Amino acid sequence: MRIGELATATKVPLATLKYYLREGLLHPGVATAVNQAVYDDGHVQRVRLVRALLHMGHLSIADARQVIAAVDNPNLGVHDMFGVAQDALVPGEPVESPAMAAAMVEVDAFIRRHHLRVRPQAAVRRMLAEVLVAASELFGVPTGQSVGADGWDDLMPQLLALAEAEVGSLPDDSSRASLMEGMVGGTVLFEVGLAAVRRMALEHASAERFA
Amino acid sequence: MRIGELATATKVPLATLKYYLREGLLHPGVATAVNQAVYDDGHVQRVRLVRALLHMGHLSIADARQVIAAVDNPNLGVHDMFGVAQDALVPGEPVESPAMAAAMVEVDAFIRRHHLRVRPQAAVRRMLAEVLVAASELFGVPTGQSVGADGWDDLMPQLLALAEAEVGSLPDDSSRASLMEGMVGGTVLFEVGLAAVRRMALEHASAERFA
Repeated sequence: MRIGELATATKVPLATLKYYLREGLLHPGVATAVNQAVYDDGHVQRVRLVRALLHMGHLSIADARQVIAAVDNPNLGVHDMFGVAQDALVPGEPVESPAMAAAMVEVDAFIRRHHLRVRPQAAVRRMLAEVLVAASELFGVPTGQSVGADGWDDLMPQLLALAEAEVGSLPDDSSRASLMEGMVGGTVLFEVGLAAVRRMALEHASAERFA
Repeated sequence: MRIGELATATKVPLATLKYYLREGLLHPGVATAVNQAVYDDGHVQRVRLVRALLHMGHLSIADARQVIAAVDNPNLGVHDMFGVAQDALVPGEPVESPAMAAAMVEVDAFIRRHHLRVRPQAAVRRMLAEVLVAASELFGVPTGQSVGADGWDDLMPQLLALAEAEVGSLPDDSSRASLMEGMVGGTVLFEVGLAAVRRMALEHASAERFA
């Protein structure tokens, strides 16, 4: 299809598609003339992933580009490729502090307690530790002592079952690219969904106490 | 304390504090001279909330200002005030489509199924519906038919128990402002934490299948 048809198929404006092409978020079509190229279903899928990353995951262009690069790097095995994308999905840079160090100890204990296969250098460890530190500041817990990850202990069996179902639902015969699109898209989308149902639970609890 | 001491107490640069003041995110101190004002513990708490909203919740300045306005509006009861903040925390604007309408039906069924006290106009309903629509597009489910909210059914009892504990932990004698700071901060912070533990579950499931 031509780029105009790609715009129609994805419901994304032509100017936005050209922006994605310029930013390297969308791979070029196959050139058929100097100023003309054709696009295929792979481009349609990719545009949807890019939109999920930018608009659901609120990633920066640079972070989205890192995720896309992981999808496109054939030298990474599926799980390692997924790990690169997972790290790119964690915003911000590491900051060292006594409170962070204490929180990281707690995060490590959480991971061990649930026998989770999470890479030692995974950025998601820092993501959780940052939450514990920020919550400890917000709720006035003394520095160096975190709010605790044990609130999530009871959720883990269900979260693991859901994750297994989610990863398991990726078809065996899918292309490497669509496998990753499914995993990255699922990571980003369903955590917004999980946040939504958690907010519903909070609104309910607030109604029960305050309404 | 003077504004310089507020900067020290919150570890937020002076220029950033002045920016918060200009943007109405931080209430002015009590003027003691033409170019001088004093700040108190309420300002310290507020700066922490603002940072949680902007840097953990990734809210825009405008959205953060709406949350702050709800905190400062004494005409709203605690639960209604919380509802305003909850709506401001949902990004984007409603878009109508057949797929959205179908997803909203499913969201309503989810809320009824779990007997949740969630306002009919709550923006969080749209937040969940948007996830279902986007996931249905990403995973190639036909338009008008969503991926389904039933994956979260098993999580709800634990999420409700956690939400009850979270809302219940707000001290009875706290000021209206710090009550809201705790609730909004908790909403924003712990959903990042929940996303983090969910990502750990996904990495684990990926390792089990692909590593």
